[in-house]
Amino acid sequence: MFIVHVFVDVKPEFVDSFKAASIANAENSIKEPGIARFDVVQDMTDPTQFVLVEVYRTEADPARHKETQHYLTWRDTVEPMMNSPRHARKFSNITPDDTGWDSMALGNK
Amino acid sequence: MFIVHVFVDVKPEFVDSFKAASIANAENSIKEPGIARFDVVQDMTDPTQFVLVEVYRTEADPARHKETQHYLTWRDTVEPMMNSPRHARKFSNITPDDTGWDSMALGNK
Repeated sequence: MFIVHVFVDVKPEFVDSFKAASIANAENSIKEPGIARFDVVQDMTDPTQFVLVEVYRTEADPARHKETQHYLTWRDTVEPMMNSPRHARKFSNITPDDTGWDSMALGNK
Repeated sequence: MFIVHVFVDVKPEFVDSFKAASIANAENSIKEPGIARFDVVQDMTDPTQFVLVEVYRTEADPARHKETQHYLTWRDTVEPMMNSPRHARKFSNITPDDTGWDSMALGNK
């Protein structure tokens, strides 16, 4: 898998709006055939800090994701909500292997 | 869910040994009833940098994990492999909700 962790620093007054926009984006993204997981998590120590945990099937899938309407809407919606530019780290999976990423809750994909 | 990202900085000569020890730990950890996911990922830019993505069902479950033999074995095995002390960040899930974390590959847990 090709895994991207996106680190987002949100202005305090936009935390709730950022959550709503990111839930909408994640719920559409997880339907893309090239995406196995698209999690959004919030730092417990500093609730203005978020991480998007994006698990793509191949290295070609992030580019396809960035062409979708839901991504473009999210990108433009959250742009003014960020306190600093977001950044990303790219990972490969050591465990589980490629069969262990899809959620049971999305078993019919 | 109670989510912990553990950041590990491994000495270059121990990368393969660290992977093996961490796969063994993850494969046992995912069988714990309090753990929904236990992923190990490796940074593509710097292969000495790893993240353990640990998804616990409740805030009480990490303490139970730290009492298991597989955790204690991992902790002692990797201690001399680390280049600097590991650190952790704690997160709550924004999306998916608590039903969306278990892997299809572990559907019988």
